[in-house]
Amino acid sequence: MKPRLLTPGPAEVPPETLLELARPVFHHRTSEFRQILAKVVDDLKYVFQTQADTFVFTASGTGAMEASVVNLLKPGDKAVCVRGGKFGERWSELCERFGAEVIAIDPQWGDPADPAAIEAALEENPDVAAVYVTLCETSTATVADVEAIGRLVAATDACLVVDGISAVGAIPLKTDAWGVDMLIVGSQKALLLPPGLAFLTVSEKAWKRVEQAPRRAYYFDLLAARKAFAGKGDTPYTPANTLVAALSRSLDQLRAEGIEAVWARHHAVAGAVRAAAGALGLKLLSSAPSDSVTAVFMPEGIDADEARTALRTEFGVSVAGGQAQLKGKIVRIGHIGYIDALDTLGAIAALEMVLVKMGAAIELGAGVRAAQQALVSASA
Amino acid sequence: MKPRLLTPGPAEVPPETLLELARPVFHHRTSEFRQILAKVVDDLKYVFQTQADTFVFTASGTGAMEASVVNLLKPGDKAVCVRGGKFGERWSELCERFGAEVIAIDPQWGDPADPAAIEAALEENPDVAAVYVTLCETSTATVADVEAIGRLVAATDACLVVDGISAVGAIPLKTDAWGVDMLIVGSQKALLLPPGLAFLTVSEKAWKRVEQAPRRAYYFDLLAARKAFAGKGDTPYTPANTLVAALSRSLDQLRAEGIEAVWARHHAVAGAVRAAAGALGLKLLSSAPSDSVTAVFMPEGIDADEARTALRTEFGVSVAGGQAQLKGKIVRIGHIGYIDALDTLGAIAALEMVLVKMGAAIELGAGVRAAQQALVSASA
Repeated sequence: MKPRLLTPGPAEVPPETLLELARPVFHHRTSEFRQILAKVVDDLKYVFQTQADTFVFTASGTGAMEASVVNLLKPGDKAVCVRGGKFGERWSELCERFGAEVIAIDPQWGDPADPAAIEAALEENPDVAAVYVTLCETSTATVADVEAIGRLVAATDACLVVDGISAVGAIPLKTDAWGVDMLIVGSQKALLLPPGLAFLTVSEKAWKRVEQAPRRAYYFDLLAARKAFAGKGDTPYTPANTLVAALSRSLDQLRAEGIEAVWARHHAVAGAVRAAAGALGLKLLSSAPSDSVTAVFMPEGIDADEARTALRTEFGVSVAGGQAQLKGKIVRIGHIGYIDALDTLGAIAALEMVLVKMGAAIELGAGVRAAQQALVSASA
Repeated sequence: MKPRLLTPGPAEVPPETLLELARPVFHHRTSEFRQILAKVVDDLKYVFQTQADTFVFTASGTGAMEASVVNLLKPGDKAVCVRGGKFGERWSELCERFGAEVIAIDPQWGDPADPAAIEAALEENPDVAAVYVTLCETSTATVADVEAIGRLVAATDACLVVDGISAVGAIPLKTDAWGVDMLIVGSQKALLLPPGLAFLTVSEKAWKRVEQAPRRAYYFDLLAARKAFAGKGDTPYTPANTLVAALSRSLDQLRAEGIEAVWARHHAVAGAVRAAAGALGLKLLSSAPSDSVTAVFMPEGIDADEARTALRTEFGVSVAGGQAQLKGKIVRIGHIGYIDALDTLGAIAALEMVLVKMGAAIELGAGVRAAQQALVSASA
């Protein structure tokens, strides 16, 4: 059976990139690798829309999230953490683990943070050191208004840190223009690579705090990372160099398409899935749905995890389920990675067939047709 | 030109493993991945000769070294650190960064630690929490007597932590029999994988300290790693799952050959290189040379880094150079990875040709012949 990975990450990877991973291993302390790393960092800056220092860590995204906490905050610093989902909660866990005082913003799961709530927290606490936000809260498929939050934080002494792991490269995030002081991104999502690398940008404003904070990190020490890269174009510790070389191929594809076109493509596909859900009477979980992943409730009486199993075993289509209180209630369909509109139409068709077999009262083809109409409109 | 990577890591990877890396990405929260992870952990325990809990981190070896410090030690704990090279120094840097009081053992570069010095340090400081040792100090190609050190530490309340990153899988290390409480290994050395994964074992004795230490780690939190693996056979954060699947292929090869046979093979090849060096009048740096890498001084008047460049550009052979005070004086020839005796004979032949061209007074073929004789003796 032909597998189609429509999970919100790890996502599918183009064959050119996979073939690069099959090439012989090479040494990392060489001008060959330094050239690749310099090129990849340059491409990442383009994708992230930044001129800020950008680092590559051999770790999954959580490692780079940790780097943005342990390097930036002093023990006792106040950190505003937007939660409202599993990944937002990770921010407050990390901040607490490293001794920060957490000021939590708790939207309902599925709702984005109200920027006014962040504004109020900053006004009440003028000594906040950093605001931690999730661009796409993957557990609820909800996108944050980072641009609005960025305007508020830029007017204060606090730094804005954004977990963009699951969505950057798929949906708009303008690091510099929106005042993001640290951006964290993972390799296995919209950047078209397997898991293993994480990326972090550091603004001048963030460097000032990093330089004043006690040096509590080692593997994720940003001062060591800056010194190694500025000095010799290197990393302080052995990088996953074959993954970096493969990333270069994937970034070539994003560059060639153009980042605005990439964003528009994800917007069109996500819009098509939302149109299909509407036509099938399936409710969206999120009031601010992301273009990187869509979470839809299954019809009353249908176990979402049974539907997922049927999708995978009968049609090879992998989608994610719900976490915590959403388990068994929703499916989450990813729009990131090397999948296109036709893969997505196929997944909608498969979901329709599965739901009809499970006894749901839906019309076969209604979702596909609505999605086609949305795609035609988007390309008009 | 056909490249041959005889560096002490990253090392060459078998084609079966490289091809596995070119397979489509799959999701990590699946029974498919949990089965692969369980199998890999089981194979790692065989290679490490342990029944202790064994964890896979998405990081390079330094990340797992950090895990063995930040989880095991309380601030103010005493840590005996064997230095005598660049990687031993990393132990004392890590221990200091996380607030331990370092008791340094400083053998000359190229000499192993004298177990009596460690014994004396433990007697003077009965409250030592951990002893940090490097199995093969790669910067000097020197092997530590971990078995003897293990006997000493086992008689105390201290834990023995061994950085086996560059050598485990190539040379003997019997985790349980030698009383190693934490063993750290990297993927890109003798385990036949590209960089990106690091491994850590934890003995019962080590768990007691971990459970009592303040919880200062997050990405490298061992309690979280134990909970995720014991509970669902999982990792707490997204693992580099395609690297884990590829590792399974490499570990199949080590299992099929048998770990004692793998150790004997590296012993024979390293012995052949030492014999060649002797025949060519090239002095070894180390008084306790490791079977995973050999460091040899170049003849008087020959710049080692020029010789390395010639080896690479004329013959495709990559070897490492000297670090710090050894820069330009030595070459380090790795014996790990998917290279065999004939690759190694080729590298010796190339080195002879390069040295003759650079004006050294050596006899072409003398090193190769001595290496052949050593290989014949080893297989007799």
